[in-house]
Amino acid sequence: MNGPVDGNAREAFAGAELPRIEAALERAVGRLGEPLGAAALYALRAGGKRVRPLLTVASFQAAGGSGDAVYPVAAAVELVHTYSLLHDDLPCMDDDLLRRGLPTTHRVYGERVAMAAGAALQQLAFLSLAEAAAIDPELADRLPAMVRRLAAAAGSEGMVGGQLLDLLAEGSTPDPAGLEAIHRAKTAALLSAACALGGEAAGAGPQVVDALANFGTHVGLAFQIVDDLLDVTGDPTRTGKAAGADAARQKATYPAVHGIERTREQADMAADVARRALGPLAGRDGVDVLLETLEFVVDRIH
Amino acid sequence: MNGPVDGNAREAFAGAELPRIEAALERAVGRLGEPLGAAALYALRAGGKRVRPLLTVASFQAAGGSGDAVYPVAAAVELVHTYSLLHDDLPCMDDDLLRRGLPTTHRVYGERVAMAAGAALQQLAFLSLAEAAAIDPELADRLPAMVRRLAAAAGSEGMVGGQLLDLLAEGSTPDPAGLEAIHRAKTAALLSAACALGGEAAGAGPQVVDALANFGTHVGLAFQIVDDLLDVTGDPTRTGKAAGADAARQKATYPAVHGIERTREQADMAADVARRALGPLAGRDGVDVLLETLEFVVDRIH
Repeated sequence: MNGPVDGNAREAFAGAELPRIEAALERAVGRLGEPLGAAALYALRAGGKRVRPLLTVASFQAAGGSGDAVYPVAAAVELVHTYSLLHDDLPCMDDDLLRRGLPTTHRVYGERVAMAAGAALQQLAFLSLAEAAAIDPELADRLPAMVRRLAAAAGSEGMVGGQLLDLLAEGSTPDPAGLEAIHRAKTAALLSAACALGGEAAGAGPQVVDALANFGTHVGLAFQIVDDLLDVTGDPTRTGKAAGADAARQKATYPAVHGIERTREQADMAADVARRALGPLAGRDGVDVLLETLEFVVDRIH
Repeated sequence: MNGPVDGNAREAFAGAELPRIEAALERAVGRLGEPLGAAALYALRAGGKRVRPLLTVASFQAAGGSGDAVYPVAAAVELVHTYSLLHDDLPCMDDDLLRRGLPTTHRVYGERVAMAAGAALQQLAFLSLAEAAAIDPELADRLPAMVRRLAAAAGSEGMVGGQLLDLLAEGSTPDPAGLEAIHRAKTAALLSAACALGGEAAGAGPQVVDALANFGTHVGLAFQIVDDLLDVTGDPTRTGKAAGADAARQKATYPAVHGIERTREQADMAADVARRALGPLAGRDGVDVLLETLEFVVDRIH
């Protein structure tokens, strides 16, 4: 176990890196004509704390990377994430009216424009990945693997498949293995890709990339377990949604399957696996930011 | 002008190449878990004549390519096309009940599964493009440009943007330039990419790739103009939809804007530009197939 962290490294890092990540995102979305551009930008701006692209940049540094090619890679991950939020909120999916306290994209721009903007966000993600290879020609060799990783994380064994499993599981009680499968796909796959792509953009070997992927997977599991727990126990002003919303929807959650105490233990176990995954990278630039991000995720329940 | 064509080259070519294209498509969709795999396969099988991937393979040959790397590239184009049909049929878009006489995917698998399958088809397209570079390592250098081309053809300035413009134009009468912009984006962009990607997969230089792209654009325009015309004049058993369906929906069409006679002329003009685009490639393998595909498209109105 690491000692207590104060989050200073993470905050300083975010302060320095967020403007570059935002610039890469706005450059990507700037390619869209209207009305898709406005809708995509709205979805992107409602998107939140940029946890994923910050993890990509920190992983890139931890893997010894330097230069600007990481920013379109980080943007690609956030574009896929933004697509997933937009898609998940649609009337035929979760049918959500609010996202972080703001009307969801389809309520502002209409369902047709929101659907098309979602499709465009996915395409921009792959476009953004290809742009990275234009900035750093050495990336061209790694681009096939990076495209495969992003597509797999977003696809049927990843985020989109996980969202669907989650919806289809509403009203039933999955077994613990089924629940972990949903969370691995819905949340952990993209966080794993966010970290691994940072390593690949840095040109790291498979050992470092795998360590980062494993770290990201367990940050994702911890994040999802904590999220489930906060839905039961949490303060709505911190979670941004009404307490008990998941239960009301009969969502498959860790507390529903494991109970609250065992769920807390599972979050701590996932965090512990994540911490140990970074062992081989101890002391490198960016690793403190990765660890503080993990603590930030888990501390919400302590 | 070329002399009359009998379509024999195209039929022989399709007979030889379709099994390989189908195998590449099924390999891609085979990566999906259930229920997405079944829905995606259903959408793919309802998809039709594989005009786009056949154009990709013929363009590859015309550009001097050989080997198997073209099949996942051809599959990528068809996966994007299949996604577009599935997406276009959804209740919040065109709300179509039938596609080629079969119930649309969302009617068989439900809207949530259909939406998720559509997203997965898009991701598989980029995955399939990346696979091509695994088959032919020389493609890795060209992959960034190919990803950019496919994303642009699919995106807001291409197919998805065009479908949206088309929907938003319902009930109004666009000017001729606005109508051509819709058709260029909705139909011609992906046909252009289908041909150009074949050239890029073959390692052709920019002159050949541009010639193929230009050919594809004008095949696409001719195709869309003919489609509009058949909707007014055609036999429903040949068009697969009720005559006058576009007019009933107040779709923006060439006959509505230009009248029937002038629309026929425009189709012939687009076909003529397409034919001339292939001038620099005259006599190469695959060019006869490209020209016969064009005649096949245009002959439907003669």
